[in-house]
Amino acid sequence: MTALRGLMKQHQIDAYVIPSSDPHMSEYLPERYRCVAWASGFTGSAGTLVITQDFAGLWTDSRYFVQAAEQLKDSGYQLVKLKVQHAPEYVDWLVEVLPANSVVAFDGQLTSAWLAKTLIAKLEALSINVRGDVDLLSLLWNNRPELPKAPAYVLDDSLTGESVIAKLDRLRIWIRQKRSDAHFISALDDLAWLFNIRGSDVPCNPVILGFGLITLNEAILYIDQGKFPSEDRSRLSAAGVTLADYTEAEVALSQLADGFTLLMDPKRTCFSLYSTVPATVSVVEQLNPTTHFKAVKNAVEIQHTRATMVKDGVAMTRFFKWLEETVGKEPITEISLAEQLLKFRAEQADFVGESFDTIAAYGFHGALPHYKATPESNSLLQPEGLLLVDSGGQYRTGTTDITRVVSLGNITDEQRVDYTLVLKGMIEGSTLIFPRGSRGYQVDAITRKPLWDHLRNYGHGTGHGVGFFLNVHEGPHVFNTAAVDVPIETGMITSIEPGLYREGAYGIRIENLVLTVDHQNAFFGSFLAFETLTLCYIDTSLVNKALLDSKHINWLNQYHAMVYEQLKPYLTENEQEWLAKKTAAI
Amino acid sequence: MTALRGLMKQHQIDAYVIPSSDPHMSEYLPERYRCVAWASGFTGSAGTLVITQDFAGLWTDSRYFVQAAEQLKDSGYQLVKLKVQHAPEYVDWLVEVLPANSVVAFDGQLTSAWLAKTLIAKLEALSINVRGDVDLLSLLWNNRPELPKAPAYVLDDSLTGESVIAKLDRLRIWIRQKRSDAHFISALDDLAWLFNIRGSDVPCNPVILGFGLITLNEAILYIDQGKFPSEDRSRLSAAGVTLADYTEAEVALSQLADGFTLLMDPKRTCFSLYSTVPATVSVVEQLNPTTHFKAVKNAVEIQHTRATMVKDGVAMTRFFKWLEETVGKEPITEISLAEQLLKFRAEQADFVGESFDTIAAYGFHGALPHYKATPESNSLLQPEGLLLVDSGGQYRTGTTDITRVVSLGNITDEQRVDYTLVLKGMIEGSTLIFPRGSRGYQVDAITRKPLWDHLRNYGHGTGHGVGFFLNVHEGPHVFNTAAVDVPIETGMITSIEPGLYREGAYGIRIENLVLTVDHQNAFFGSFLAFETLTLCYIDTSLVNKALLDSKHINWLNQYHAMVYEQLKPYLTENEQEWLAKKTAAI
Repeated sequence: MTALRGLMKQHQIDAYVIPSSDPHMSEYLPERYRCVAWASGFTGSAGTLVITQDFAGLWTDSRYFVQAAEQLKDSGYQLVKLKVQHAPEYVDWLVEVLPANSVVAFDGQLTSAWLAKTLIAKLEALSINVRGDVDLLSLLWNNRPELPKAPAYVLDDSLTGESVIAKLDRLRIWIRQKRSDAHFISALDDLAWLFNIRGSDVPCNPVILGFGLITLNEAILYIDQGKFPSEDRSRLSAAGVTLADYTEAEVALSQLADGFTLLMDPKRTCFSLYSTVPATVSVVEQLNPTTHFKAVKNAVEIQHTRATMVKDGVAMTRFFKWLEETVGKEPITEISLAEQLLKFRAEQADFVGESFDTIAAYGFHGALPHYKATPESNSLLQPEGLLLVDSGGQYRTGTTDITRVVSLGNITDEQRVDYTLVLKGMIEGSTLIFPRGSRGYQVDAITRKPLWDHLRNYGHGTGHGVGFFLNVHEGPHVFNTAAVDVPIETGMITSIEPGLYREGAYGIRIENLVLTVDHQNAFFGSFLAFETLTLCYIDTSLVNKALLDSKHINWLNQYHAMVYEQLKPYLTENEQEWLAKKTAAI
Repeated sequence: MTALRGLMKQHQIDAYVIPSSDPHMSEYLPERYRCVAWASGFTGSAGTLVITQDFAGLWTDSRYFVQAAEQLKDSGYQLVKLKVQHAPEYVDWLVEVLPANSVVAFDGQLTSAWLAKTLIAKLEALSINVRGDVDLLSLLWNNRPELPKAPAYVLDDSLTGESVIAKLDRLRIWIRQKRSDAHFISALDDLAWLFNIRGSDVPCNPVILGFGLITLNEAILYIDQGKFPSEDRSRLSAAGVTLADYTEAEVALSQLADGFTLLMDPKRTCFSLYSTVPATVSVVEQLNPTTHFKAVKNAVEIQHTRATMVKDGVAMTRFFKWLEETVGKEPITEISLAEQLLKFRAEQADFVGESFDTIAAYGFHGALPHYKATPESNSLLQPEGLLLVDSGGQYRTGTTDITRVVSLGNITDEQRVDYTLVLKGMIEGSTLIFPRGSRGYQVDAITRKPLWDHLRNYGHGTGHGVGFFLNVHEGPHVFNTAAVDVPIETGMITSIEPGLYREGAYGIRIENLVLTVDHQNAFFGSFLAFETLTLCYIDTSLVNKALLDSKHINWLNQYHAMVYEQLKPYLTENEQEWLAKKTAAI
């Protein structure tokens, strides 16, 4: 901090902003870009540091309030609580505290063009200067990690359901519709989807660092080519893809011809690349259409995902059976149970790895929605209280994400009420029938209502899009309270995961993945519904039936019948018996 | 149309846009600005005409699909159905149809700065030229009406609950917070609220054409001063208000000093005034804070509004009693019943006029959410079917807006189901308990769910803000499906008015006004609720009880007990007896 402040003085910077990002605006970061963790010790996936000479703060959202408060102890950084997740609320703070003619700086590689322009517009109107080209961290960070070099590969069309050629065709139709010459892509999952490539540059997300420039007759993939086996390079080339070096992307943008019209997503492109484009090029700002294409799963992806849910459900069943039979007899900790769960998943065909770090949170740790056990915090399970397990797998055949809470014994009435209301919300969301064109905030409100009715609520969103063997969080749609103006469409996969957190006591979250399906074309319009994909029992020993209507009880019983039916063929007789009890009608 | 196209050719304009607006971005327009009606015959409150040499269209929303289709017959204008209310969807159409180097033009007086800038950004990126200073209509419109000259007056603080001085203080604190020198106001209801003035320049909205420029030590009201009696001019002057001519506003903006920082709402300021500001002035774009101040009613306004609801409820009771006793005996038409309703309202103290044109819609006319009977359409009531009456009053003590549907006899099962589901939605919305910070789209979703459950829906919003003796539609909050990112706050008054429309058959809408109130500070945060303000029975003869849960029935019975209790003191014995029957528990 002292060194950083020294550098700030030297460069005449009054406020320095360090976001949690990389040049691709990723959520999960390669080690090289874990700047917030390096500077402050905070390891959450979302947070921004702002440093002035007399203040240093971390702006993060309610998922991380408790974790941040702990990790920032003695770091010199204060926790500043965001009112709205991901909102750049520190900008208003800068407006308040900085005098005219101050200088705010950040590294334009780690800041989206949209955010940088917002900062500039807001601050420069008040005569505060903004410099978007200042990387102070590289000067301070000894042995800053290099860019990753993990192997990469091409996925077969039998897995993806759509060839690169067909995807490029779709993209080019859009480029023509927008009367433009080309589209530049920075988002790693969009790139992975478009080129049917996967890798492991980033933990849990099977993506590869790269950029794409797609013109009407060329498709250039800027990437470390050495990551691919030569036959995959040939396959890409056969699909009309030109491979170029990762660092060439910037050069290519800087050399675009006069009068060229380039489509770019200012929220998914870093400011420094955005600024590289010559002024004589006309930049048309548009959401990456690949974000939308990717979110709407095709029939092959859906088929694979359904099959993947069976594999994941078998692993989850074995895991919970093992847990129930072992807890109280052998020592189990949060860390060891996460390892055990990984083992069960790894036994399944096509398993690649976890889709995110397992959240195995016992007792009061459950109240931290994004808890990750460390050797220091690691709890030993007792035969009492609630255990929350939020986990997921990356399979070559799909991505899973599931949360269950199970009783280890000695449950209080309040825990039962809380659990049942969360379950009720999950069922309300899952059974919703809604008009085509509805937004995620509508699903969110309906899911929360059973909790609101009892003056309860949760600080995170209700659900996120999930990739097909891609990122466990993907857009453009989301189920949360924010005004995200994106319709929910047939073929989208989303989580529904209401929760409830009593700090210092326990946390509850129940999460299934659902697929949006056509429901009915009625007199009043076309209606959609959800098909639940996740296949794993829900602990009914925690249910207070009096709080549920018959429609909730019916749903639960039908869901359990389906879970049993689908998983049974893959379970031993012993496991079948155990699951039959767990899925018995209530 | 031919003349207009001729002028377009002459001015080398390929597409001309005529919005429904005035220089204040009003919804209800002075005659002079009813350009859409003059050009096309369409009289709805929202719609945009776009004319090219080979196409002429009216873009409007679902409230007006049926009405527009009728009114545009033989006009040469095609109806283009908006997907999203108020969205400038014609811009995408322009992008599709216009070749490069085309010219799009509009009158900058009738187009907000925000919309004009959106048009320019989208079209100029594609080499389509935009001219925002072309008023073709004045050249074609013989005897175009002059600006209105209706008398105006100052409201007493005992009515408004806050002096002009106090309001200006609040505004100046905000100007300072934004580090600015002044705020310019174009919105007529904001102006009326800030200066505690009312008038009748516009039908149904008690506003006066004017602009305001508020600096840290001056408050200039640009207005036709002759509208005020001299004592009111003195009162304004005593409150520190300088009066200047209406036309001086433009001059004042053009003469702002170099380095001046001006706050303006680009959505509530017309493009031509916005463009008048010298480039050396720094314009900071912000929502008018007065829109927010005005939406949060103070204790005096709330008190007056509650009392006004009693007066309005008495008028409504007398009206429906008269209707029931007269229909089938004497001829009643849609127009005559609206006149009768106005008479009952006019008997009430402090009544000023209607808050909008009464929608008295019998039978299939009810399916037009914004129907207004004309001598041609005017239906004679029969003792059968459904009658929808949506009406409201302007009182010096508040503004009302209420919709009821009553049975005139011979009701079908489907009508009963439809009515009950609308009522269920209304009750779900009215009884919602929700966290502070919630948005209108959340209330909207919860209100619609009972209809969605039965594959029904309605094409309009669930509710709008309502002024205090001001516009019946006011922002910034709204209850609808759109991503309007404005929290609902304690003190806001909003309508809850779900509906259901079967074209060619009938329409149903049930509307109450509700006040947002603090509910409880709970462990999981602060919760808000609604207090229902409107006092008028709901026709229970149309209810199918089997579709309601006990919570809905309890609400209805309690509401009816309250309506009876509150209105009883002001009714004759005869009326009391009648209302007792109408409000009997079910």
